[in-house]
Amino acid sequence: MDLKIFDRLESEVRGYIRSFPVVFSKAKGSLLFDEEGRQYIDLFAGAGTLNYGHNNPVLKQPLLDYVQADGVVHGLDMATSAKKNFLEAFERLVLKPRGMKYTLQFTGPTGTNAVEAALKLARRVKQRPNIVSFTHGFHGVSAGSLSATANAKYREAAGVSLGNTTFIPYDGYFGPDVDTMAYFERMLEDRSSGMDTPAAVIVETVQGEGGVNVATLRWLQELQRLCRRHDMLLIVDDIQVGCGRTGTFFSFESAGIQPDIVTLSKSLSGFGLPMAMVLIKPELDIWKPGEHNGTFRGNNLAFVTAQQALEHYWSDDAFTREIQAKETLVRDWLENMVHSHPEADLSVRGRGLIQGLVSGVPGLANKIAAQAFKGGVVIETSGANDEVLKLLPALTIEEGQLRQALEVLDRAVAEVVAAEQLAQKQSNARVLKFGGKGR
Amino acid sequence: MDLKIFDRLESEVRGYIRSFPVVFSKAKGSLLFDEEGRQYIDLFAGAGTLNYGHNNPVLKQPLLDYVQADGVVHGLDMATSAKKNFLEAFERLVLKPRGMKYTLQFTGPTGTNAVEAALKLARRVKQRPNIVSFTHGFHGVSAGSLSATANAKYREAAGVSLGNTTFIPYDGYFGPDVDTMAYFERMLEDRSSGMDTPAAVIVETVQGEGGVNVATLRWLQELQRLCRRHDMLLIVDDIQVGCGRTGTFFSFESAGIQPDIVTLSKSLSGFGLPMAMVLIKPELDIWKPGEHNGTFRGNNLAFVTAQQALEHYWSDDAFTREIQAKETLVRDWLENMVHSHPEADLSVRGRGLIQGLVSGVPGLANKIAAQAFKGGVVIETSGANDEVLKLLPALTIEEGQLRQALEVLDRAVAEVVAAEQLAQKQSNARVLKFGGKGR
Amino acid sequence: MDLKIFDRLESEVRGYIRSFPVVFSKAKGSLLFDEEGRQYIDLFAGAGTLNYGHNNPVLKQPLLDYVQADGVVHGLDMATSAKKNFLEAFERLVLKPRGMKYTLQFTGPTGTNAVEAALKLARRVKQRPNIVSFTHGFHGVSAGSLSATANAKYREAAGVSLGNTTFIPYDGYFGPDVDTMAYFERMLEDRSSGMDTPAAVIVETVQGEGGVNVATLRWLQELQRLCRRHDMLLIVDDIQVGCGRTGTFFSFESAGIQPDIVTLSKSLSGFGLPMAMVLIKPELDIWKPGEHNGTFRGNNLAFVTAQQALEHYWSDDAFTREIQAKETLVRDWLENMVHSHPEADLSVRGRGLIQGLVSGVPGLANKIAAQAFKGGVVIETSGANDEVLKLLPALTIEEGQLRQALEVLDRAVAEVVAAEQLAQKQSNARVLKFGGKGR
Amino acid sequence: MDLKIFDRLESEVRGYIRSFPVVFSKAKGSLLFDEEGRQYIDLFAGAGTLNYGHNNPVLKQPLLDYVQADGVVHGLDMATSAKKNFLEAFERLVLKPRGMKYTLQFTGPTGTNAVEAALKLARRVKQRPNIVSFTHGFHGVSAGSLSATANAKYREAAGVSLGNTTFIPYDGYFGPDVDTMAYFERMLEDRSSGMDTPAAVIVETVQGEGGVNVATLRWLQELQRLCRRHDMLLIVDDIQVGCGRTGTFFSFESAGIQPDIVTLSKSLSGFGLPMAMVLIKPELDIWKPGEHNGTFRGNNLAFVTAQQALEHYWSDDAFTREIQAKETLVRDWLENMVHSHPEADLSVRGRGLIQGLVSGVPGLANKIAAQAFKGGVVIETSGANDEVLKLLPALTIEEGQLRQALEVLDRAVAEVVAAEQLAQKQSNARVLKFGGKGR
Repeated sequence: MDLKIFDRLESEVRGYIRSFPVVFSKAKGSLLFDEEGRQYIDLFAGAGTLNYGHNNPVLKQPLLDYVQADGVVHGLDMATSAKKNFLEAFERLVLKPRGMKYTLQFTGPTGTNAVEAALKLARRVKQRPNIVSFTHGFHGVSAGSLSATANAKYREAAGVSLGNTTFIPYDGYFGPDVDTMAYFERMLEDRSSGMDTPAAVIVETVQGEGGVNVATLRWLQELQRLCRRHDMLLIVDDIQVGCGRTGTFFSFESAGIQPDIVTLSKSLSGFGLPMAMVLIKPELDIWKPGEHNGTFRGNNLAFVTAQQALEHYWSDDAFTREIQAKETLVRDWLENMVHSHPEADLSVRGRGLIQGLVSGVPGLANKIAAQAFKGGVVIETSGANDEVLKLLPALTIEEGQLRQALEVLDRAVAEVVAAEQLAQKQSNARVLKFGGKGR
Repeated sequence: MDLKIFDRLESEVRGYIRSFPVVFSKAKGSLLFDEEGRQYIDLFAGAGTLNYGHNNPVLKQPLLDYVQADGVVHGLDMATSAKKNFLEAFERLVLKPRGMKYTLQFTGPTGTNAVEAALKLARRVKQRPNIVSFTHGFHGVSAGSLSATANAKYREAAGVSLGNTTFIPYDGYFGPDVDTMAYFERMLEDRSSGMDTPAAVIVETVQGEGGVNVATLRWLQELQRLCRRHDMLLIVDDIQVGCGRTGTFFSFESAGIQPDIVTLSKSLSGFGLPMAMVLIKPELDIWKPGEHNGTFRGNNLAFVTAQQALEHYWSDDAFTREIQAKETLVRDWLENMVHSHPEADLSVRGRGLIQGLVSGVPGLANKIAAQAFKGGVVIETSGANDEVLKLLPALTIEEGQLRQALEVLDRAVAEVVAAEQLAQKQSNARVLKFGGKGR
Repeated sequence: MDLKIFDRLESEVRGYIRSFPVVFSKAKGSLLFDEEGRQYIDLFAGAGTLNYGHNNPVLKQPLLDYVQADGVVHGLDMATSAKKNFLEAFERLVLKPRGMKYTLQFTGPTGTNAVEAALKLARRVKQRPNIVSFTHGFHGVSAGSLSATANAKYREAAGVSLGNTTFIPYDGYFGPDVDTMAYFERMLEDRSSGMDTPAAVIVETVQGEGGVNVATLRWLQELQRLCRRHDMLLIVDDIQVGCGRTGTFFSFESAGIQPDIVTLSKSLSGFGLPMAMVLIKPELDIWKPGEHNGTFRGNNLAFVTAQQALEHYWSDDAFTREIQAKETLVRDWLENMVHSHPEADLSVRGRGLIQGLVSGVPGLANKIAAQAFKGGVVIETSGANDEVLKLLPALTIEEGQLRQALEVLDRAVAEVVAAEQLAQKQSNARVLKFGGKGR
Repeated sequence: MDLKIFDRLESEVRGYIRSFPVVFSKAKGSLLFDEEGRQYIDLFAGAGTLNYGHNNPVLKQPLLDYVQADGVVHGLDMATSAKKNFLEAFERLVLKPRGMKYTLQFTGPTGTNAVEAALKLARRVKQRPNIVSFTHGFHGVSAGSLSATANAKYREAAGVSLGNTTFIPYDGYFGPDVDTMAYFERMLEDRSSGMDTPAAVIVETVQGEGGVNVATLRWLQELQRLCRRHDMLLIVDDIQVGCGRTGTFFSFESAGIQPDIVTLSKSLSGFGLPMAMVLIKPELDIWKPGEHNGTFRGNNLAFVTAQQALEHYWSDDAFTREIQAKETLVRDWLENMVHSHPEADLSVRGRGLIQGLVSGVPGLANKIAAQAFKGGVVIETSGANDEVLKLLPALTIEEGQLRQALEVLDRAVAEVVAAEQLAQKQSNARVLKFGGKGR
């Protein structure tokens, strides 16, 4: 396919086009079509932006109607009917049923901008600059968010020193036997640990970019307890795994925790439109008017589709049950793959419809993804070394398409394993070095 | 009008809704309509985002067609037909005719994200962290951009120290007699000035948020010369005054300078859709794939309308001449106002269709804006003390509407002056203190 | 005793005067005398500055002779005879016998200034800003050193954010079962741990201020191995425990490691005179002339006494054997105390003649120190909560004085325990929380 | 002379030894003697540390007596008789006669440590991180002080970004016609200047290292006024030009200003011994005990000589008159040189006994200094480009020696001018570019 104009004109920073070197022209539900008419099943979903699929008709028609009728498209943070309708729907369908009290801040319509706002607010509320983030955490690449993002690839691009953050090992970072929350607690309780008292902790309940690392509910509860005890705000960055990805609207609902600040973006508009929002406990909302601004805060087209998504999918718990059913289906398939391909040193982790197929063989995940693409499935890898195939289907994916994609994936694994001539993995159990002295 | 839901649910950070306390529902060209059907002429234009007016039909129909046909809406930075078409149009209509060579980076679709990318790149290319920005400069409020933004209101919201920037007085900062470029040069040439060698200079050719401060063409040329001589990159932040605002597509064309990096956003999509882009001289494009990323980089709906805007408005110089004609009309009116209302201590400054009516009477500009709003005109103020009425009509505004809006404004000035019972301004010429010792 | 002038005129920052509220007038060997003629045995030794005792006659007479003869007292870093003699002695008696190759930098005559220089140099050699320091580490309180100092008491006094350092748990920080070097290694190997690649590691082999925490020789060797593998410089801060404190001239000799940079100060002059020095592997000595300067770098009086100290104490290994004998004596006494006073929840740790008597009872150590002072012994506490009595006698202390001081200490413990009416400590074994989940 | 051991063993950072490549062995008053018995007149005075000359007998005998009698040499910040005597003398002879109220902090015994303490305290008192410093200012090279030091040579050695300081042009920076205080005021009054509100201003009344730049008394008064008006503390760094250098004990006395904080070091001990002190207005002394510490704070030998210096030189105004007389003598000679050697493009500036002979011919000052050294005079250069010969004789220099040194200097100028074959300088008046547009 002709990608010359991209090679000639687009910056070297372009990324996904290198993994999926075709020109996409149409998209519908979980299907993508390239300019030559080839069809792909989408297990990537805009990195979590398309939870309701591409061009979801439930959202599309109201969007068309709105534009057709000359609804306000751009209005900075002026009041508009579209915004009003969204606010009412969010209060009625999300906040009230969950007994939540938050004020809503519409930041620039990107996840990183929501994180920037959250960090600013937390620092000012607590009058302390330090923020705790976690190993493998990803919160964006604008300078404030980047300070809280763990990956050296992004950090080294900053061109300046990144500070005012302390990284703490995420749940499971040293394996299942090491309680990283105990580590954190020790650092907090010791006035001579070197850690400056944090204003807040920012955490993803499942780390998407970091490699589909899943925090246990107990760990999240411990984290909240620690935040309360040590006067730190708890910020849940729900940009990638909120909006239903783990089964509930917020990813932290099953843990029963109540963050002080929540960031949302990606699937919030439901239609792939740029939108971002920060939820703030009212007593922390010390913003002065206009202190954090941005030209596209309050994207009215996004308000229109976001409201529709809430009305249609979150009025009752049917959608949650649908997601859970699909999770079961995906997990079964993946666990089957683990057992069918021992040479690939696979394992599975995830929650809801974010599931990672991890390979212990360096480079394998990327090869599987490339092979799957040949087979007509779009899927990305994540993790520090791209060692994790990240299955991120639309939550609305048809079961048939999902099974078909999993078949392609299964076949891709088999083909790559065969091509690589991987010998059966020896049972050299990895020795946990950390904490290992005395054992 | 009922704004209760906003008061109850939206964060205290909300701003413009306080100046324009109505709910807008429709918009067409330069007209806004609230829910009660009242009509307003828009001299605000989304702070420079709506250069082609609201719901411009030239752009609207292709947008509707694209969505209707299930074009790809969200594709991260994968190749899409919409993006391809935009690239081709931008090359053909913008770069080639101007003899420009740039690669294009699509950042997260906000101006501040484009600035973040530009600053990162400049720092890495030059391996130096310091960036020069100017008094009254505004480049966004995410942490990286915020470091280069001058206004304390935004800076103090950061919650952390902002560093790696040096502020230099903008053209005219100390009045017309002081050559601030000589100041800058002295600081650069002196190894003991305390200024760390900058990687780059970031500048707006007209400072929009900063109070409609206009750099002379000669000053801009001097700046470029200084950049070349001292091995600094020149970044023009054309987010607010690019895309035709000053008459030409780029605001710096008349100065004949060639920035190393250019940031664009706001009116780039033409339809008020979130979009941002960085233009990079190819030899500086040292990005590695994916180093600066973001969920909504490459907003396909914006590509569709942006392409249309280029095709329709920038194929020849008719639009430039139209803007110039309107500039003349606006300047005439404004200068008339200056002379008609000496008590208001007014003056005019601007370039193209960004014109500022400055009042030396504290608080007056805000009162005039409020009065104008009562008269059916939406207009904002800018400057460190909101002392400047910023006239920012759509470039496509109908002449009749423009005249009507100026009449409202003129009347608003008269009414406010009367209400304030301002005495005729005494001729207490302000003494220029800076540089004043010897005079 | 009359301390009014101090109360009236000296800043609130004054510290030790509050613990030892007398005016000292004379000092000789390990004895201090106050203005009223009362005599004290000194187990404090100027926090490690008086390894050879007060007014050691071996050093005193050459000092008097030098001043009497109008030797150069102040010479910045010009060449002087005194400096030349010191250089020759240091090469002959310290470097050559140990097969060491270092160049010597004389910084401003304070430990913190030597650390500042070491950190600068390491960062520039490796062109990376991050430095690894350890929990409970203390390296001084000027801004650069302070960034590497763990204690919040000092950090919070900075008034600015401290950055460009990462704190790693010191040996034993989580108890004997947790291998903190494995933690460090994991963070280094993982490009997504959030730790920016360090230029260097700065470490004390025994943490004096931090509470007499002793790194095992194996841990130090592992640290050197990790530094080599990950291209980090190894800086040993030997300011408090160098110059013989642990038995050998450098504290790291027994570990068999070869740091890239070593900082020395405190007992370097031998006479309590301000002096500081940085040892640099010649290939790392990329300083340009005068880049790191300071008025009192190269204190000639200190050169005179430092040379004498080297000649007299470090020409053979007799002094080392003497220190080891005293260490045995002190350990025996302390371990006896541990067993004699179970209610005080005591334990002992240390190496050479820096020994800590740790009490698990909050506040007890300070009470014991105060009681000991009443009994005529000057001793300080250290640790994050002042929970450690730090025994730091002159290395030259007479055995009789040492025994006498230990008797006073023993009695002080008994008296405090009695006064506090401490019940016998229950055998509630502390649960090691960190790493505890799976056990 | 044999400097091999220095070449072999001392770090590349060594500086003055390169300018004065001899080994000094003795010193008395204003005379230095090298190992080969050659004699030099000292116009360098330890960069301002030897205001009372080398081995001043008035101070020397008490010092010898003190050591001989086993006075406490090292006592951290415990109370000692020597410290008490100094405090009483400083109160009686310095503070009371001048009606000053300060508490005294003894920091680590280096100028830079005093500056570190001053900056910390100012930032904490005002709860703001930004400090204003001036072009060409020098305050030391430890990281905190270095942030406030202007010279790139030192700044670039830091290895990290230096922040939390804003540099403002010093008096006369743009020539006599430009009022830099007006510049500063404008930046302060404008909330959108980009300058974060400073906690304090740190200033030298005469910039020694920066090139003997002299602030006018009026400028200093304006600075104090600005500090008061804008809630900034005024810190006078009197390390180089305090202790009588400009004629009065404090250099700012003639300006009639009352700094909030004063730093002293260099000549404070009077004998070239390391000592540093911070004077703090009592209401600002919010230090907690021990927050800023250091092993050699409170150097007792320095207290002994410092007290003697105060008693002998500052009990009446005879010394001030003596300094003024010598200033007149030096100025006359220097102005004569200016006129005698027009080819050298010389000018004179200074106050008291810090006088700079500035040459407009690049490299000339260093050549003159080298030539003078051959003639038996030790003198250093300063300024950003070493363009200033800095005359810094001991204040106690005998008139005969002073005349002799000036003769040598005069001859050195003549010789260098002859050797360089400098043509008579053309009268190409420098055009003041800054502020020049309109003139």
